[in-house]
Amino acid sequence: MRQALDLALRGMGKTTPNPMVGCVIVKDGAVVGRGWHDHLGGLHAEAAALRDAGDKARGATAYVTLEPCSHQGRQPPCAPALAAAGIARCVCAVGDPNPKVSGRGLKILSDAGVETVCGVLEKEASWLNRGFLSLQTRRRPWVTLKAALSLDGSMALADGTSQWITGEAARIESHRLRGENDAILIGSGTLRHDDPALTVRAVEGPSPRPVILCSAPVVLRENYKALRRDAIVFVPKETAVLPERSGQVYAVSSSAGRPDLKAALEKLAELGIARVLVEAGPTICSAFIAAGLADEYQLFVAPVFMGEGRKITDSIHLQRMDDAIPMTLRDVRTAGCDLWLEGGNPCSLDWLKQ
Amino acid sequence: MRQALDLALRGMGKTTPNPMVGCVIVKDGAVVGRGWHDHLGGLHAEAAALRDAGDKARGATAYVTLEPCSHQGRQPPCAPALAAAGIARCVCAVGDPNPKVSGRGLKILSDAGVETVCGVLEKEASWLNRGFLSLQTRRRPWVTLKAALSLDGSMALADGTSQWITGEAARIESHRLRGENDAILIGSGTLRHDDPALTVRAVEGPSPRPVILCSAPVVLRENYKALRRDAIVFVPKETAVLPERSGQVYAVSSSAGRPDLKAALEKLAELGIARVLVEAGPTICSAFIAAGLADEYQLFVAPVFMGEGRKITDSIHLQRMDDAIPMTLRDVRTAGCDLWLEGGNPCSLDWLKQ
Repeated sequence: MRQALDLALRGMGKTTPNPMVGCVIVKDGAVVGRGWHDHLGGLHAEAAALRDAGDKARGATAYVTLEPCSHQGRQPPCAPALAAAGIARCVCAVGDPNPKVSGRGLKILSDAGVETVCGVLEKEASWLNRGFLSLQTRRRPWVTLKAALSLDGSMALADGTSQWITGEAARIESHRLRGENDAILIGSGTLRHDDPALTVRAVEGPSPRPVILCSAPVVLRENYKALRRDAIVFVPKETAVLPERSGQVYAVSSSAGRPDLKAALEKLAELGIARVLVEAGPTICSAFIAAGLADEYQLFVAPVFMGEGRKITDSIHLQRMDDAIPMTLRDVRTAGCDLWLEGGNPCSLDWLKQ
Repeated sequence: MRQALDLALRGMGKTTPNPMVGCVIVKDGAVVGRGWHDHLGGLHAEAAALRDAGDKARGATAYVTLEPCSHQGRQPPCAPALAAAGIARCVCAVGDPNPKVSGRGLKILSDAGVETVCGVLEKEASWLNRGFLSLQTRRRPWVTLKAALSLDGSMALADGTSQWITGEAARIESHRLRGENDAILIGSGTLRHDDPALTVRAVEGPSPRPVILCSAPVVLRENYKALRRDAIVFVPKETAVLPERSGQVYAVSSSAGRPDLKAALEKLAELGIARVLVEAGPTICSAFIAAGLADEYQLFVAPVFMGEGRKITDSIHLQRMDDAIPMTLRDVRTAGCDLWLEGGNPCSLDWLKQ
């Protein structure tokens, strides 16, 4: 199953809104077939592994990172294909929450006399496909908040200067994170202030689709770099004048002149975005944190003190220590001279059974 | 030498203003004597090891964590004693910067025909005795700033509430830190607000002497817990009325109604304080950080966001990113659910050749 999970990773960033899936077929203790879902529209992992195994699939065990599908989509369904190929035993990591599958895949297999097991390395497989699972069951993308901070919680000096808090290694990791996400979200402030390209540069990988949260008044010129790449733009509903720009514009409900985050995330889910990376400034970061809508945190902390400045939680006011917003620390690493904290919203991790 | 360093640690918190010293005597590949400086006024490490070795010291090698002393103090000098015992070779970790010794110890040994080596595990030995070395060569204590922070740099909510940001494991480690220090420094604000005991409780170890930095106007009642334990109190020079309290009061030069930190540290050095732990609030922490007077950082970071509040660098205003105050990360651990960062002021670490 570990091999199957490794194979699944090869589809990173290319399968959305499909899940990443890997499949390993084992017979008499030897691997006879390997496959993975490489990209949207490509062969499913099971089909690829069956093709790789050929006749050796008969009587073999298939290890699949997700319950095999039961429905005809862009590709033929995998559960009947496994049964037809003579697979004797099918071991899955996690059930498919897609209502078109959800147990049906396993049922097709067991009805055909295939022994089925589900739940092997379930935690790892759920984490791998957290975007897909979120889209299927929560109807919103999995949100990763990435920020570069100082030890004293600053994202920028008081005048907005933020380049560069963290070092080269952290920037490379940030580009890797971009490659793992379907979309990258910033605010109109960052768009205007930095005009970022939001592309994947330091590593190999597909560039995520830009998402711009515009607060009123909306003034966007055509020539911002991010807008040229099929951007998704959210504007407050009450904004009468839509901006002159390319990309898709969605007017969503708002409060205090800012698009409502939940409404924007729901729309992103409708557009098939399974994972979104928030690379915004303090105002939007604060809003995601305060609303409990940051599922995952990737914090690069530079070992410097920046004094008074724009803090990551600028707009959050708490009355009691009990109200402090918790993050579950998942991993602590270093990226060059910087500290790299990976954390999660405890509620999101609970939901994902982590 | 590693064994000798371990032995030296047994004097932690009890030898000031003397250094911690360990000594191991080896003959024909076997340890024949061990000793350490256990407490101020007690036997020196070399004398203890020689006593342990007896006649076996003749022709043996002595490993000492600090250059043996050459002068009569509370105890007889060690360099002549080692030579008299017939030690053939003396290996030291670091030279003694005490002007009464500084090379004289090694010279006495080599003049007596003892082979000498200095610089073995020098970095480790310097770190071990950073308080003693600071006192001897900088005429001020080694300053360790300890703080409990949130991910967004808060030490307290806006109303001053700070109990408890970090968890039990961090509190135990904080008490261990107290036990390693000769003094513990807080401001009059913390004294009045929290009335802390500042004693070592969660672990074994001597309690550090309380040091109170009073900002004007100075109003201290007799019955604060810390004042009952022979506290050292610094007040601004211009304060006419000295407080009614126990302990020693020193009026030092000041600015903006606050005692000058350098002047206070110099006075602490005169009083034989080699290591001081700053456990103060944001104002004093900021002052130490901004002045470059925090040599070492022990930061316990709770994985929570606290929003707007009292930040560790509340009073620091920077104009440019290049002015950000750096900390060299020495170690990253966890203490329970909290993150535990050990860092140093790059200038202090350079001075200590770390």
